[in-house]
Parts: sequence; C-alpha cells; structure tokens
Amino acid sequence: MFFASDNSSGVPEQVLAALARANDGFAPGYGADAIMDRVRARIRDIFEAPEAAVHLVATGTAANALALATFCPPWGAVYCHRIAHIEEDECGAPEFYTGGSKLVLIDGADGRMDPAALADKLAAAARVGVHNVQKGMVSLTNLTEAGARYSVSEIKALCAIARDHGLPVHLDGARFTNALVAEGCTPAEMTWRAGVDVVSFGGTKNGLMGVEAVVIFDPAKAWEFELRRKRGGHLFSKHRYLSAQMEGWLENDLWLDLARHANAMAARLEAGLSRTPGARLMHPRGGNMVFAEWPRVGHHAAQEAGARYYFWPFDQSLDGPGEAPLSARLVASWSTTEDHVDRFLDLIPGR
Amino acid sequence: MFFASDNSSGVPEQVLAALARANDGFAPGYGADAIMDRVRARIRDIFEAPEAAVHLVATGTAANALALATFCPPWGAVYCHRIAHIEEDECGAPEFYTGGSKLVLIDGADGRMDPAALADKLAAAARVGVHNVQKGMVSLTNLTEAGARYSVSEIKALCAIARDHGLPVHLDGARFTNALVAEGCTPAEMTWRAGVDVVSFGGTKNGLMGVEAVVIFDPAKAWEFELRRKRGGHLFSKHRYLSAQMEGWLENDLWLDLARHANAMAARLEAGLSRTPGARLMHPRGGNMVFAEWPRVGHHAAQEAGARYYFWPFDQSLDGPGEAPLSARLVASWSTTEDHVDRFLDLIPGR
Amino acid sequence: MFFASDNSSGVPEQVLAALARANDGFAPGYGADAIMDRVRARIRDIFEAPEAAVHLVATGTAANALALATFCPPWGAVYCHRIAHIEEDECGAPEFYTGGSKLVLIDGADGRMDPAALADKLAAAARVGVHNVQKGMVSLTNLTEAGARYSVSEIKALCAIARDHGLPVHLDGARFTNALVAEGCTPAEMTWRAGVDVVSFGGTKNGLMGVEAVVIFDPAKAWEFELRRKRGGHLFSKHRYLSAQMEGWLENDLWLDLARHANAMAARLEAGLSRTPGARLMHPRGGNMVFAEWPRVGHHAAQEAGARYYFWPFDQSLDGPGEAPLSARLVASWSTTEDHVDRFLDLIPGR
Amino acid sequence: MFFASDNSSGVPEQVLAALARANDGFAPGYGADAIMDRVRARIRDIFEAPEAAVHLVATGTAANALALATFCPPWGAVYCHRIAHIEEDECGAPEFYTGGSKLVLIDGADGRMDPAALADKLAAAARVGVHNVQKGMVSLTNLTEAGARYSVSEIKALCAIARDHGLPVHLDGARFTNALVAEGCTPAEMTWRAGVDVVSFGGTKNGLMGVEAVVIFDPAKAWEFELRRKRGGHLFSKHRYLSAQMEGWLENDLWLDLARHANAMAARLEAGLSRTPGARLMHPRGGNMVFAEWPRVGHHAAQEAGARYYFWPFDQSLDGPGEAPLSARLVASWSTTEDHVDRFLDLIPGR
Repeated sequence: MFFASDNSSGVPEQVLAALARANDGFAPGYGADAIMDRVRARIRDIFEAPEAAVHLVATGTAANALALATFCPPWGAVYCHRIAHIEEDECGAPEFYTGGSKLVLIDGADGRMDPAALADKLAAAARVGVHNVQKGMVSLTNLTEAGARYSVSEIKALCAIARDHGLPVHLDGARFTNALVAEGCTPAEMTWRAGVDVVSFGGTKNGLMGVEAVVIFDPAKAWEFELRRKRGGHLFSKHRYLSAQMEGWLENDLWLDLARHANAMAARLEAGLSRTPGARLMHPRGGNMVFAEWPRVGHHAAQEAGARYYFWPFDQSLDGPGEAPLSARLVASWSTTEDHVDRFLDLIPGR
Repeated sequence: MFFASDNSSGVPEQVLAALARANDGFAPGYGADAIMDRVRARIRDIFEAPEAAVHLVATGTAANALALATFCPPWGAVYCHRIAHIEEDECGAPEFYTGGSKLVLIDGADGRMDPAALADKLAAAARVGVHNVQKGMVSLTNLTEAGARYSVSEIKALCAIARDHGLPVHLDGARFTNALVAEGCTPAEMTWRAGVDVVSFGGTKNGLMGVEAVVIFDPAKAWEFELRRKRGGHLFSKHRYLSAQMEGWLENDLWLDLARHANAMAARLEAGLSRTPGARLMHPRGGNMVFAEWPRVGHHAAQEAGARYYFWPFDQSLDGPGEAPLSARLVASWSTTEDHVDRFLDLIPGR
Repeated sequence: MFFASDNSSGVPEQVLAALARANDGFAPGYGADAIMDRVRARIRDIFEAPEAAVHLVATGTAANALALATFCPPWGAVYCHRIAHIEEDECGAPEFYTGGSKLVLIDGADGRMDPAALADKLAAAARVGVHNVQKGMVSLTNLTEAGARYSVSEIKALCAIARDHGLPVHLDGARFTNALVAEGCTPAEMTWRAGVDVVSFGGTKNGLMGVEAVVIFDPAKAWEFELRRKRGGHLFSKHRYLSAQMEGWLENDLWLDLARHANAMAARLEAGLSRTPGARLMHPRGGNMVFAEWPRVGHHAAQEAGARYYFWPFDQSLDGPGEAPLSARLVASWSTTEDHVDRFLDLIPGR
Repeated sequence: MFFASDNSSGVPEQVLAALARANDGFAPGYGADAIMDRVRARIRDIFEAPEAAVHLVATGTAANALALATFCPPWGAVYCHRIAHIEEDECGAPEFYTGGSKLVLIDGADGRMDPAALADKLAAAARVGVHNVQKGMVSLTNLTEAGARYSVSEIKALCAIARDHGLPVHLDGARFTNALVAEGCTPAEMTWRAGVDVVSFGGTKNGLMGVEAVVIFDPAKAWEFELRRKRGGHLFSKHRYLSAQMEGWLENDLWLDLARHANAMAARLEAGLSRTPGARLMHPRGGNMVFAEWPRVGHHAAQEAGARYYFWPFDQSLDGPGEAPLSARLVASWSTTEDHVDRFLDLIPGR
C-alpha cells in the first residue's frame, strides 16, 4: 500500500535484463555507445521527428533545468503554473541553470495554466522595456502536479498564445506516458504538432531507475544542450547504462503498458473513493494520481495499517474529529497491484 | 584490447546483483532509503570518520563541481594542476557551480602540483586586495591525470601549504582506489589525516555504472552540499539504485580487489613496454594507467588489430617514419585481462 | 510640470560645488579618498551606528542587488512585495547577483507587505526540505512603490516576523529620506533599531547625480560586500566623485531639506486633487508621490500643456469618455516648484 | 609628483562645465536624454560607424565584463594576455558576467599577445569536443598593461587569427586614446577596420569622473547589451550626467589633447630616465606609461619627497643596496605637468 510517489516503485525485470545485456565488454562512453544510436532512432520514430535531438539525463530536475536554460536567456521569464514542479520542487534549479531567470506564476484550476491568465501576463510583458525581465518561454506540465491532464487541444491553445509572443514551449513530461495513454493520442500530437519545442520525456516515475530523455525538435539547439549537460555534470561516462534502460523500456511498448497499468490502478482507487461516504475527489484524474479527501477516521486506519501517502497540502494535521475530511494525494505506479488498492480502500470505509 | 579508458569497462556481476536485490518493492526516495543508511555507515567506517557527510552523485564532474562550490566562494581561486580534470575535462563545470570562480593553474611534473609553485602562487595572492580574485581552495587529483600518484607525504605537504593560507583542500579521487591500493595506505591516511577536507571518492572508473561518493569531513557543510546537489539536479529520486551499487562494490572488499587487478594489469603493460625496443615510459606509473611512447610501426599494428587507446597528447598524427615513436595513454580496468595485455604487447614488438 | 519621476530632476548647486571642490589635484582611488573617510563617519553618525559598513555605488539597482547577494544564498528566497522595485524594475538583477535566488511575492495594500501574508509564507517555507528554495531574507521598500510609507512600528512588526525565522532584512530606501522626514523619526529608528540589517540609502532620487550608500550594520559582512561590488563592476576608480556628491548632500541637512520640499510639493498636489471634482487618491501619500485618478478631460488638458507623468498602471489608454477617470502617478522632487504644481492643478479642473 | 595611476587625476574644467550645463531642469532618464543622442552620433562619427551601438557605463570593469558577456557564452574561453586587466584586476567580473567562462592566458612580450601563441592555443582548442570549454572570444588591451602599444597591423594580425576560428574580438581600451594618438591612426583603423567587434572606449583614465563607452559595431547585439547592462545595475537613471561628461570630453578634440599631453609627459619621463645612470626602461613606451628600473637610492629620495607611484611588480621591497635597481611603473595623465616630471627626475640622479 505504497501510494506516496511513483518514484518509490522499483523497475520491471525487463529493465534489469537490459542492463545485464548492456554490461557485456567494453563500450565507448559519453553517449557514443551503440545502444544510444538505437534509442535515438527509436525515440525519433516514436515522436515522428526524424531530426529531433535526443539526449538522456538521470533526473527530471536535470531534464527540466537544462531544457529551460537552452531556450530561455538569463533575463527571460519562464511562465509556468503556480504549482509547477520547476517552481516548487527543484530548489531553484531553473534559476541556477538559466543564470537567474524568473519564474512567473500563472494560475488555473487543477494545475493547468488558464489560457486567459497566460495571455494577460504575456500581453502585459509585451509592453515593457529594459527595466523588466523579458518574455522568455512557457513551460507546461502534463500530467499536472494536481494530477489533471492537459488535452491536446488545451496544449495547442497555450502553445498558440506562446507563439503569438514568439516564445518557445517546454513540456515537463515527468508523467508524459501516463498522460499520453490516458489522452489516447500520439507523442507527436501531444508535443510538436501542438506547438511544443522541447520535452522532458520522463522514464523514472514510470519504471526506470533514473532516466529521462530530453527531446528537442529543432536540432540546431542540440550542441548547446550538450554543452550545458556536460557543464552541469549530467553527461554519463558509462552512458550505455542510461541507454540500455531506455531501450528496454521502449521495447515491445513496455513503457505504454506500464503507464496504462498505473492509470488503471489509479482509476480503481478513484472508483473506490467515489463510493466511499464522506470522500470527495479534489481534482479530475488525468492519469495515475488521485487527489481526494476522506474522513480522518479512514486516514487513521490507513496509516495504522502501514499505508504510505502524502497529505495534500502536505502540512495538514491528522488531529481533529474523525468524521472531518482531510485531503491527500495517492499515486499509483506500474508496480501497484489491485490487491494494494483494494486493501487500501477497505481501510477507509468512510465515516 | 580496450585501453581507451577505465570508464569503457562494464560492472562486475556483484554490482548487477546488488541492483537486483535493491529492486524489491517500494522504497523511500531521495537518499532516505535504508541501503543508503548502511552505505553512509560503511563509508564513514572506511574513512574512520564517524561524523563525515556522505552523499552520492552519478558523475565525477558533479562530485567535483559540487565539492568545489561548497568550499569556494564565487570570488575565490581554485588552485589545481594545469592538466587537472576540473580544468581540462569538465567544460567549465567548476566555474558554473561556484558562480564564476577562477581556476589558477599550477605546474609540476607528472600531473602533480609542485609544492614550491603552489606556495609561490599563494604567497603572491596573499598580498592582493579587492581588485583580485581571492584565495579560495586547493584541489588535488590522485591518481593524477598523467597516471602518477601523490604519496601520502606529498599530499600532506600540499595540504600544509593550503592550511598556512587558511584554504580547504579537495581531492579529486576519480581513481582514488587505484591510488590507495598502490600506496598501501588507509583512506584516512590519504585524506583527512593528511589535511584533505572533501573527497570525490570515485566508483565509476572502478566498476560502477555511475556512482561517486562525496565525503565531507566537516559535517557542518552537509546541508549546503545537499541544497547544491538538489539544485544541480543531482539528487536521485530512486536513490536506492545509487546506494545499492555502492553497497555491492564496498562489500567484501570488492572495490579494493577491482583496483588491485586494474593496477596489476597496468603493471603488466608497463613491464612489457619496458622490454620493448624503442619504447619509453613517459610518467611514473601510480596505478592503472601507463603513459608510454613506442615506434609508429607498433601503433599501426595495434590499431589494425583493433586495439583501442588514445594518443597522448591526443592530437598527434600516426603519419611518419615507422621507427619514430608516438606517445599514448593505456588505461587498464578491473575487466582488463592478462590475455588482453599480452595480445596487445605482442603487437608492438618495437622497431 | 515634470512629474514623471524624481530621477528626472537635476542636482542642487551644492552638489555641483562639492564636485568642483573635490576636483583639486590627485586623489587615491577606489574608496581610499579622504572625502570617503568623512562620508563614512558622517553616515555612521547619522545612523548612530559607529561600526556600520558604508559603501557607495552609483545606482539603486546595484545597491539593492549587492545588498541582497551579500545576505541571501543562491538557494534562498527573497520575500518582497509583489510590486517591489527588485521584482518589477531591475530586469532580474537580484537573481543575477545572488546566483539565482527566487523572489517570493507577498501581497498587501499600497505596496506594503501584509504581515500576516508574510508570516504565512514563512510558516509554509519552514516546513520544507531539500526540494525547495529555502527561506533567505526579507526586503522592504520605503517609501513603497505605491507611494505609501511603512511606519516605524510596521517595519518593526515585519522585522520581528523575519527574525522569528532567522532571516535578515533589507530596506530598499531609494526614497528613504522622503519616508524619514514624513515619518519624523531618526534613521536608526527606521532601520537597525527596528530590525533592519542592510539599507540601500538612496541619494539619486533626492538630488544626487547617481549615488547610493549601502549601509550594513554588521561590519562582518563588509568584505564580502566589497568583493561583490568590485566583481560587479561597481567600484569606482575615481571614487572621490561619489564621495563628494554624498558629502555635499549630507552637509547642513541638505538631504533632509530636499526631501521635505519634495514631500511638501506632493502634499500640495494631493490637496489640489482632493478638491478636484471627479478626482480620487488611490493610495495614502507617504512622501513625495501621489497616485490619483481624475477625469480624462483633465489628462487631455495636462498633456497638451506639456505636463509629464505616467499613467499608473502605465498601460492604460487615454481613449474614452472625457468624464471617465484614469489613474496616474505624480512624483514631486526637490526641484518641483509651487508654480509647477499650481499650473498643473489648474489644468485639471475636473469634469 | 603623482604617477601612481592616471585614475588618480581629476577632470578638466570643460567636464565640470558640461555637467553644470546638463544640470538645467528636468530630463528623461535611462539614456533617453537629448545629450546622449548627440553623444551617440558623435561617437559613431568618430568611429566612422554609423550603425554602431553606443552605450555608456561608469567603470572600465563594467564595460569589459558586459562586452565579454555579450559576445562569449558561459562555456566559452576568453583568450587574453596573462597580465590583462580582465584577468588580474577585476576580481572575476568577466567570469561573473559571462556566467562562468574561462580566461585562457596567452603569453607575449610587453603585455602583447604573441600571435603564434594565440594561434597555437586556438588550434588546440579547435580539436576538442563536449568535454572542454569551447573557443569563445579574444580580448586585447591597448595600451597593454605593460604600457606597450599594439600597432594597427599587430591588431589586424590577431584579429585575423580570431576570425579564422570564427571568434569575435574585444578591445579593452581603458587607455584607447593614449594608444590612438601615439599610433597616429583613426579610431576605425584601430578597431573595426582591423577586425575588432567591440571596444571599451575609456574616458575615466583620460579626464572623466567615471564614463566609458562600449561601442559595438554590430547593432544586432545592442539589445542584449542593454539588458545585461540594466541587469548588472549599470544603467543610470540620471543618465544625462554620463552623457554630459562624454560630450564635454569629445568636444573640440579635448579627449585627443588630453591624451597627447599625458603621452608627452610620459615621453619626458622616459627621456629623463634614459639619461639617468643605472636606470633602464623595462618595456617599450606605447603611450602614457613608463616602466623602468633605477637604483634604490633614487627611490628613497623620490619617496621621501612625496612622489607616488607603484613598484612593479608591486610586491618588491625597497630594502637592499642603494645602487641596486628596483622596477616601477610611472603613469602620466592629462594633469601631469612638466614641473611634476622635472622635479621627479631631479630626485633620482642615478647611482
């Protein structure tokens, strides 16, 4: 009953097997391994982007910060949602990597930027001069940090606003695959066809040990990205172990299967909670995360039984009347089982 | 016959096994995994430093740059050897992480800083004012980039000079274990007992996929390091996979055995080359690297047979008379075999 | 009729005279001039802070950014009002100088941070870990960007909140003297006695060509500030010309007289507008700035007559019905005359 | 007898007068003043560069660091002489402003980069990959820090090498005018016609209080420069006082006359020293600086008489036999008189 985060899960056996296969003999380092050649080709194929620059790093923060720094100058503003991971959970990595850019926070329900709010901020910024941080880029997160999902048309709408101002768009896809299979679209539809310029295509939360691909659709940016990656200490000498994980994960649509399973387990949680008296969903479920409140009595029972998850907002107290609801985040992963879900739901029978 | 770099080698089966063991079930992320608790205790034990801060990162550049940034202010100078990895091979990562410090280059034979040269530079810097970069810290590399080794007493001498100026000392130990077993001393003797404040304790070149421990002997620096690591995108969410590799590697003295083997293979190369007519060793061998020149005819033969290694300096040309020597770097690793060495030596019979 | 900004005014003759006096012969550079010794002593005296570090720079942005960088680490948050100059008008200088810190915006009426809002943000930040930007420092602006004034007791209250969290406090005093004479307190009361650690004590807007003093009450920070100033290119070689301006300005209470005059002219504007039909004050007047709206017909008349001021917000349009009000900012300076004010008021007789 | 630095001198009366003239009434800020329009036109005219971007800052360090940052990426190397001001006297400002670039030091007699040494370094850098700092730009200083002068043809030769590698060239012209009048060429010949892309055109050392023009010959770089200037805190609100100084200085060829005078006084020093027994010139005199050694007995006499100058290298001791020579730097300025020079020479009659 571990719903604290999808990054608490392990990796499927196919990934371990891929690592073992890659371990044979000597291999050139720093991304010149033969496996990376195949991975690059495969990701270009998946994204229908034969020219795209594809680079691997080990963490989502690195993927995001390097992507932002490659597209946004130090004096640029990055427009993102108020609860975006880049704003709230990266200890200022975007500011560090960009050389001091400013994150400008956009509101919107369920972690999705409201297009009108974005348009307003950009319109205001369009009228400023040298005294102000300049318009830099837009960064979306899909799935959002509230577990919701941007539809393809919503992404298009935001990208259109960005394009009106000449701004590139970054997609933080730490849970890209969960969004993708839920939306039922192609990677191209969710990214460059909608107007996205660079994607953090996350593997870690969906079954890898620590691999994220940064996919840049304009290959002219590749070399700068490579220099920033190296300079950031994110270029692996024994790169084959990143490549191998990614290859094993992409093989036979494993990545899609893992995300589908995680989403299904979240749907099962959601369904159970919707039947629980006193429980209430806080945000529409976009993929593998459920944000819900339920009576404290159920929290007590769940925690005593060893269930792991975060209150959300995380700084709430369990103290209070047993029937008073408390909100929480439940994250399902590729390794969540129906049994985990059902046992958990049994513990919170409502008030 | 792969002598290009020790980071071209794979990992021993014990490391794969450790990863597989760690893969069971859910685990807390970001360094809160139980394996890390054991790794921290083990490394403290190995270094006889029960209070030391121990943190894992995935690359040597990250280990070095974060260590430097934690000890050196933006206006500080880092004194290092002219061919140090931090100067030549990290694309400015130290400058990036420190916020723009300056690397001041010290000469000395075989990649070892000459104590008198260091003392002179520091004495000159002691007399400057606000117009100049200030004295910041000293960074040694052991093994050096020329394959030589600082003895414990040489480290002590340099640290004493640094201490005279109130400067902390960093040890880039990408090949720390190779130096350690060759020197026949303890980790404590090579580090804090000699005056070193922070070590990049490298695992990657000696049998890991990508794990380096940064060991800081003053625990008061730990929290700043953690913030810099996170902000640099170097904190792993599924941290257990770094921990597990490190644990497997430290178990049963595997790390020492791997380094001893690599050093023995380099010694075998060295011995063979010393018997080769027209060959000459360029630097004293400190561990697992051999720098030597031999006639071009031998290079032709080796390369045709598929041997892999770098000319050193790397920008030399193979053109020229067959008997004319050309210098090269040969790196042995834990996975180099006697057969690799002997076949290679057979190819270069001299002029 | 120039009310666009107090930095559109010139300098009083005493400042020119001081420059001329300072121009005699040779003088040591970089702050070692004898005039600076006197200025330092005088400012320490004015602030009743005999140990304070006193440094001059030429711009308010430099004063603020250097002050912030000296007190806030790269991973720290600077808590400031949403419309603070450091957030809105310095093109990211604080982020640049601090190495990428994050400005966290606090709301509050009239440009004053609401103490409860600040306390809430800090309380939330107190519960975070390595994933988040850490609490760094608090920055107040007095006068505020909305022309209001923090009273001494309001400053004390905010400083107390900061101190509860162990945070230093910066006061952006671009219009410090205007606030001071309006509040009728001493410099010490408005700063260190209230809990302020570092002040940007502005001279430029109140009669200097370009001189601001940064006053740091803890002299242990002085050397770091000096290095940051030099490294930022803000240490003047012919420093005597900064010193001389400051000396001339402090002499015979000129600085206080200039601010009193500016405030009186703003009061005259305010009084006139309060008698104007259809006009309305937008913020309480704290010193030399008046924020008011009045009918567009009056704006038309004023602008045709050559009056200079900014609409506030600046991106409003003059189009619209003549009786419809439009808001604007009017800034009086030491060189504003009663005649300027009265002619201006005559132009906007209301609807 | 003040020969310590040309920045110890004051300003000529024309500059004070220009400030007084500019002080009349209100003026738009931040470079929008009418005087700046005239200054821009005048400097474009002087440089025969009708499209050039012209911006004023108050210090040479700001001019240099901003110029470098505008042309060199964070991962770029700046090739400069080992004793360049940007390397030795700016406390890391270039590293700070560029975001962590690396200064690569080139040797050469008299502070002039040796073309072959530059070509060698660039050739080596041309063969590196992602692990290394990339070629960024070249920075010359004229007059050099050793008081010598690059001829136009020497500048051309270095620029040609830079151009072969696609690198822009910066000219640190803190003593540009001294070099110009000594060389007897036009500003265009010394800069863009020779291949220079950006000049720090220094006024401070030659008679201004603190004004340097950054002249960028490709106007496409202007906006980035303006943002960096603002973000660095170097945009003056009361900009007219920078403009006015510059205008007064350029008027009636005052700038040229001042430099000619300074150079003549240095020539007089040089001539006197060449007649002094036991004295010896250390570097060829390019303009207004003389580097020479003479017997300690003469130093004793000069210092006792109140002469001010620096030993060079500055950390030498006056102790020693009276006839033993000691080297020093003597800088003449626009305000040095024949009497200063002659009295000084009288004090050092040789051994």
